[in-house]
Amino acid sequence: MLTITRYSEIVNEHLARISYPAHPQGLYDPIKYSLEAGGKRIRPVLTLAVCDALCGSPDKAVNQALGVEMYHNFTLLHDDLMDHSPVRRSRPTVYVKWDERTAILSGDAMLTMAGMLMRGGEACNMDAAALGSVLDLYDRTAMEVYEGQQLDMDFEARKDVKVEEYLEMIRLKTSVLLGCACQLGAIMAGASKDVQLSMYRYGEQLGLAFQMQDDYLDTFGCADTFGKPIGGDILNEKKTWLLISAMQRANGQDLIDALAIEEPQAKIDAVREIYVELGLDKECREKVTEYSTEAIKALPESLTSEAREFFISLARNAETRAK
Amino acid sequence: MLTITRYSEIVNEHLARISYPAHPQGLYDPIKYSLEAGGKRIRPVLTLAVCDALCGSPDKAVNQALGVEMYHNFTLLHDDLMDHSPVRRSRPTVYVKWDERTAILSGDAMLTMAGMLMRGGEACNMDAAALGSVLDLYDRTAMEVYEGQQLDMDFEARKDVKVEEYLEMIRLKTSVLLGCACQLGAIMAGASKDVQLSMYRYGEQLGLAFQMQDDYLDTFGCADTFGKPIGGDILNEKKTWLLISAMQRANGQDLIDALAIEEPQAKIDAVREIYVELGLDKECREKVTEYSTEAIKALPESLTSEAREFFISLARNAETRAK
Repeated sequence: MLTITRYSEIVNEHLARISYPAHPQGLYDPIKYSLEAGGKRIRPVLTLAVCDALCGSPDKAVNQALGVEMYHNFTLLHDDLMDHSPVRRSRPTVYVKWDERTAILSGDAMLTMAGMLMRGGEACNMDAAALGSVLDLYDRTAMEVYEGQQLDMDFEARKDVKVEEYLEMIRLKTSVLLGCACQLGAIMAGASKDVQLSMYRYGEQLGLAFQMQDDYLDTFGCADTFGKPIGGDILNEKKTWLLISAMQRANGQDLIDALAIEEPQAKIDAVREIYVELGLDKECREKVTEYSTEAIKALPESLTSEAREFFISLARNAETRAK
Repeated sequence: MLTITRYSEIVNEHLARISYPAHPQGLYDPIKYSLEAGGKRIRPVLTLAVCDALCGSPDKAVNQALGVEMYHNFTLLHDDLMDHSPVRRSRPTVYVKWDERTAILSGDAMLTMAGMLMRGGEACNMDAAALGSVLDLYDRTAMEVYEGQQLDMDFEARKDVKVEEYLEMIRLKTSVLLGCACQLGAIMAGASKDVQLSMYRYGEQLGLAFQMQDDYLDTFGCADTFGKPIGGDILNEKKTWLLISAMQRANGQDLIDALAIEEPQAKIDAVREIYVELGLDKECREKVTEYSTEAIKALPESLTSEAREFFISLARNAETRAK
């Protein structure tokens, strides 16, 4: 096994080697711009690490790792436009730097390119069974991600969203792609179906842990470490696990009053105080631990102790990370 | 061989049988709405007819025919948003009937579904070589279509577009998909690479003939038959073959003056008069005949006379159609 940093470097090296037609620039420049922006590369790292753990080399899964990262960045590009988010990773988003139709078209091209990478590119030499497994998994996952995004949009207009609905939404919108990333590595390593599904579950539960920790840090994190202002979810009244749980349990009027406060910092403080009174901060951390423990439990017995340690440490990191 | 109408019915029957998850409706309803709208179904008809001509049955290519139609409707959905076109086929477009983000997300899902259909769905039993050929062709075509759309957008801001550039743009934006539709039918029929490429060229040249005839009818057609007001391209100063040719050949000031006229009908009449003076109306018709003749020349020798007649009649129809 290599380190997370090394897998991530492999991803970046291969991303930088993707060749684009010189023309038309208006189509390809926004794609390069999106992929250059960096980020944790957690999904392709998972694909490479799982493949490495199961067959002793990450190389076989490089195209699928790039495909997953391309797909993920396509969703970010279109989501930023749908949500009108002007900034990502400290840079203007594509629809701001270029325009809306550039964001739509370049995103479409990224989705097609993701599919090409997923099947190993034009010189694909995958055997038919592996190819079928990769594409079935990828297509199903892509459809689930759209469903998750649609549910997220639907929830904005609803006042009666339940915690279980929220968890299913984040499972679809974010976790299934981590599950997919892991299973792709297992398929490319030639692992059995059982091992494939165990690794899928590991990724899916890890994704839930990451998302819940994100929700926690957005409200209870430290701005300097987290890298963005704390309290954004509260200001936007985003229906996170914290807000939905509070809506179900708090004295309704207190929460309504807190949300109605106009001064931003006072609103954040008031809502956060309600969360703490209800013990939701602790409960949220417990949920993170629960999901990362589930992820670890899913790991197949057959892993070497070195590989096991790698994936356990990644899951525990979901709990302890502050950014 | 069946009739165009019958192939088109087969397409519609299978489109109606695609099953969608019940939930979330906000994702799937716009997809059904887009596909219900009808249209000529020319692309999937070509796929079925070519397959039928080459192996005696259209059935083998049904999934690829649906994939091509799904892809085409995805491009319409996103193009309508990019161009802010409020109406298509006499109905409000998706971004008008729902909203912009619904149009983006449902379009994305259609693109993923098109890929699934292209490879024969989950229970794919295509042999690996055919699958590779189908996906290589489809992915390459999809990228070319985006490039064509990007060039079309780039041209809006340019005053020096050349006729050759325009022809390459419409080849990419519209013709390659007709070429792809034909070649898909040939691949699924198990035809040789030579025959596949001949059918591709037939579709590509047919596409150019159709597009040039469209440009002609938009300016010189009859509103009642054409189904939309005549002169829209002139009013929008759309860089069609007619306008670009006129810009290269007309006395510059006459054309500038005509385009500057404010009253819509007077502007249409004045620009049309310049086109006629330059003989561009006749020349445009000659180009249509040239392309449909090229399409017919590309037809492989091995076709039965019945099949040959079918494809010749389709190409001649590109010249004579008034709608």
